[in-house]
Amino acid sequence: MKVGFIGLGNMGAGIAANLLKAGHEVTVYNRTASKAEPLVKQGARHALRVEDACGGDAVMTMLSDDSALEGVVFGDGGGADKAGNAGIVGTLKKGAIHISMSTISVALSQKLTTVHAEHGQRFVSAPVFGRPEAAEAAKLVIVAGGSDDAVNACVPLFEAIGQKTFRFGMNPADANLVKLSGNFLISSVIESLAEATALIGKAGLDKQQYLEFLTSTLFNAPVYKLYGTIIAGQKFEPAGFAAPLGFKDNRLVLAAAENLRVPMPLASLIYNRFLTLLAQGGDKLDWSAISKLAAEDAGQTKASS
Amino acid sequence: MKVGFIGLGNMGAGIAANLLKAGHEVTVYNRTASKAEPLVKQGARHALRVEDACGGDAVMTMLSDDSALEGVVFGDGGGADKAGNAGIVGTLKKGAIHISMSTISVALSQKLTTVHAEHGQRFVSAPVFGRPEAAEAAKLVIVAGGSDDAVNACVPLFEAIGQKTFRFGMNPADANLVKLSGNFLISSVIESLAEATALIGKAGLDKQQYLEFLTSTLFNAPVYKLYGTIIAGQKFEPAGFAAPLGFKDNRLVLAAAENLRVPMPLASLIYNRFLTLLAQGGDKLDWSAISKLAAEDAGQTKASS
Amino acid sequence: MKVGFIGLGNMGAGIAANLLKAGHEVTVYNRTASKAEPLVKQGARHALRVEDACGGDAVMTMLSDDSALEGVVFGDGGGADKAGNAGIVGTLKKGAIHISMSTISVALSQKLTTVHAEHGQRFVSAPVFGRPEAAEAAKLVIVAGGSDDAVNACVPLFEAIGQKTFRFGMNPADANLVKLSGNFLISSVIESLAEATALIGKAGLDKQQYLEFLTSTLFNAPVYKLYGTIIAGQKFEPAGFAAPLGFKDNRLVLAAAENLRVPMPLASLIYNRFLTLLAQGGDKLDWSAISKLAAEDAGQTKASS
Amino acid sequence: MKVGFIGLGNMGAGIAANLLKAGHEVTVYNRTASKAEPLVKQGARHALRVEDACGGDAVMTMLSDDSALEGVVFGDGGGADKAGNAGIVGTLKKGAIHISMSTISVALSQKLTTVHAEHGQRFVSAPVFGRPEAAEAAKLVIVAGGSDDAVNACVPLFEAIGQKTFRFGMNPADANLVKLSGNFLISSVIESLAEATALIGKAGLDKQQYLEFLTSTLFNAPVYKLYGTIIAGQKFEPAGFAAPLGFKDNRLVLAAAENLRVPMPLASLIYNRFLTLLAQGGDKLDWSAISKLAAEDAGQTKASS
Repeated sequence: MKVGFIGLGNMGAGIAANLLKAGHEVTVYNRTASKAEPLVKQGARHALRVEDACGGDAVMTMLSDDSALEGVVFGDGGGADKAGNAGIVGTLKKGAIHISMSTISVALSQKLTTVHAEHGQRFVSAPVFGRPEAAEAAKLVIVAGGSDDAVNACVPLFEAIGQKTFRFGMNPADANLVKLSGNFLISSVIESLAEATALIGKAGLDKQQYLEFLTSTLFNAPVYKLYGTIIAGQKFEPAGFAAPLGFKDNRLVLAAAENLRVPMPLASLIYNRFLTLLAQGGDKLDWSAISKLAAEDAGQTKASS
Repeated sequence: MKVGFIGLGNMGAGIAANLLKAGHEVTVYNRTASKAEPLVKQGARHALRVEDACGGDAVMTMLSDDSALEGVVFGDGGGADKAGNAGIVGTLKKGAIHISMSTISVALSQKLTTVHAEHGQRFVSAPVFGRPEAAEAAKLVIVAGGSDDAVNACVPLFEAIGQKTFRFGMNPADANLVKLSGNFLISSVIESLAEATALIGKAGLDKQQYLEFLTSTLFNAPVYKLYGTIIAGQKFEPAGFAAPLGFKDNRLVLAAAENLRVPMPLASLIYNRFLTLLAQGGDKLDWSAISKLAAEDAGQTKASS
Repeated sequence: MKVGFIGLGNMGAGIAANLLKAGHEVTVYNRTASKAEPLVKQGARHALRVEDACGGDAVMTMLSDDSALEGVVFGDGGGADKAGNAGIVGTLKKGAIHISMSTISVALSQKLTTVHAEHGQRFVSAPVFGRPEAAEAAKLVIVAGGSDDAVNACVPLFEAIGQKTFRFGMNPADANLVKLSGNFLISSVIESLAEATALIGKAGLDKQQYLEFLTSTLFNAPVYKLYGTIIAGQKFEPAGFAAPLGFKDNRLVLAAAENLRVPMPLASLIYNRFLTLLAQGGDKLDWSAISKLAAEDAGQTKASS
Repeated sequence: MKVGFIGLGNMGAGIAANLLKAGHEVTVYNRTASKAEPLVKQGARHALRVEDACGGDAVMTMLSDDSALEGVVFGDGGGADKAGNAGIVGTLKKGAIHISMSTISVALSQKLTTVHAEHGQRFVSAPVFGRPEAAEAAKLVIVAGGSDDAVNACVPLFEAIGQKTFRFGMNPADANLVKLSGNFLISSVIESLAEATALIGKAGLDKQQYLEFLTSTLFNAPVYKLYGTIIAGQKFEPAGFAAPLGFKDNRLVLAAAENLRVPMPLASLIYNRFLTLLAQGGDKLDWSAISKLAAEDAGQTKASS
């Protein structure tokens, strides 16, 4: 397929590379243009403006937050040089698909659904689970929401970048809610492991052995293995997923829950963990560094992070 | 081995049966004697008093709480007919082993370690993970704490009843702390799934499909599958592990944490969930019924439990 | 003084009446014009457009939330009939003062400070403590923030409507933060009384007597008396301050705290109480109705609200 | 009246002195005998054994916790020299009154009610509100529970030591529940002030001025003035009421609530604050030092305590 790709950060660069490997014709755009170079070497075309990435069958976006995505969609993000031609929404062909892979708010997803429909374009929300290593290895788990025809059209792209795609109905925003709730569940795992290891650690047991026990039995799941290793080793740098991004997603979950009037006290507890971590200067750490706080509350020596 | 077995509830009956199947010579005792009958048919001897089950190489106990265990150990539990000969501690041979499989407090485990040593007996703490089905299928996960010689001597018994044994040091109470922390982690899974499904449920998504997605990817672990199914189906009866027992374990975690001065705010949150469930009459439900509360707080119709 | 008054709700009507009583020349505006009638009878002029209330030395605004205030300030609120002349900011004379009495966000207060300064106008933030009865009785407590000259110029107005004015620095937004934090403290009183009365109530003690005891000794403060009476009597209608407004203020506190990176776990707890109350249909109740939830969690019969 | 007084700590010494001033005949006992000296100089008799303080119309106890009180009541506390004659319960005359002023558990109060009745003695529970200064100044607030005849008989004693007595029914344990709930309410004030001052403090406002504002208006109550001053000044030593005692009372509230099945999430939040303070070495500080934690979570420099 002929596809644009906007956003070449930790995640986007790996995804775009896999699209190229699978034989798709990819035009990449990134605000900091130098990040496009490695992909150009792999065969990508380089768009200097957002709209130059919007001429194909689809354009995929992988950006850090609502504001960055709104910038490229509505033209404030560098592509707004011509009136009426600005941003994705002003450039994408009728019938072409905007595939949003960013973890954005439910509200923005709903807005994009409406706006793209008004412009005769199609919108698919396809947030992913997986850290940069998984993006590079084409092992992402994709959660897709959108009309059947649109999601079906995206299958070749999803196959190039992920291990599995799950579809959640016709409403793109549902995929975003599932993604946000998934990040909530992961952060719950981090908090629960943090409290449990603070407990057994203060009792003098070996944290490493404890986590090996957990992850070889009841908690034999990727997420426990990944975060159990990080927590036992207290290795929060470099950040695979930085604390401010984890905090952002936590706030998006709470915002969606507030709109639906669903109290989530555990999400609130985690919210305060993130706020504490950031108040104490943890912006550069992996989001799993909220796990330090349980140990610190228990009076255990601060990790050397 | 020649072994006594005390406590033939949901869990104990299955365990004792597997000991018999493996060829051990088992003498069973239960306060309500009728529960011994099926095991007698399978070849067990029936002890009418606690001390009649204490004549072998080891005696295993699987009781509901600290108080029940103290009863049989110190003689208030039905076996105290002769002064000086009462209970396990007054009956067990020198060198024989008391294997405690109950989920008891760290404090009681420490006390039993001391008391048995004073009587020349050995004490192994070997709490298990697994519900009654796992006990019956000899698929329990055993966490064992005690001196090497004592734990080694128990291996033939553990092999008869479990799929795997993990050893945590020489201090029996460490095994109890690991067990309690494990139940805390499971209850955290329940709470997090409860909040996440309340959220996506109120948004109109299908809970069953959502949980299938979770458990086939990041949360591909037995505990998510088991509780995900129960929560999606809202089937809390019959109770595999009753709410009052879940509450008891939650309190034992918090008691251990208090003694070690480890704040566990998520455990406190779950504490209040249990207290709410019990205050509203949920004593007969499975402990995973605390998951109803998130949905009820969100104004969703009460489950027909 | 010659002053405009915009917003004749529960609070505003009483305040405007007291300005008239004190001899000020008051021009009132309200979106629903009929609410102006009683005040016109008391001597007020009636402005049919926002800008008709902006011709004097000052204009006071008492509106329900950020959005309503932004409407009248920037012209979306009914006054935007002429370009360049819309809303307060387009109409108020140079040097005249906009006195904002609404409980608004710290962020909007900061924005208004800047915008009014750009237009050569002065901005004073003067949120008030007190329920409608206090507004009517000229017993409000006023928290004022703004430049000395501006706040000094407002003194005759404040004297007409309140019992006392406290000044918090030159930055108008500081007054809003103090106001929001004050509402947080009041909601903490409500939550603490709710839990305490659920406890002593379930033990069979008399709630009325209990609250009389508290408020005649250690907790001999107006806020305990007011809310103690409401909670003991479970009388949440009619709402003096409706639950959705209490929720709004709770969210504004948390938003200000988030911007400053200050975790407030008690405010989060109260946030979830409000969200639960609203999810269960409590929109018409007084904000102190969050106190019902502690009793309901304890399994006590629901109040007949 | 002829009265014994057991427990001459911070609180007891002041109370006993006031009994003497009012003309009562007081025999004092304290485990560390030297503390009796100042009172002997004021006219008290000195009992060297618990039972020597139990010969009068009443004996008052003011001890630090359940265990200390059980010691003197049942004879483990130094007075158990003669079999059958040990402790208060073995010594007090029939019809004489044990007045327990300590903050003890509801459960112990119930037990003492039963045991004293079995011995033909009367039991009055009369915990007090007030710090050592109030005890010295005879300004305590007394909460009394017990049979009418018994409480009436105590009136001359209460008048000598307090400013006011409130009676809560015939059941002594009710007075203890009221006392415990009162301490919960005070700790809620501390937590709410801690979060509010962390917020306005990080915004750069003056904490002193802020607390003056609060306590001169809505929160014009002794408890806000006392703790507001301590919190604004960050002066947690010397401890008027030490953190471990505050923690003890918090646990007693939660224990009573658990028995009654009343979830108290705010009390749980405060529980974790205390546990954190103690885990971090705050044993010597005033209980209001839990207020430091909100500021520390917000990344503000640690107080020099």
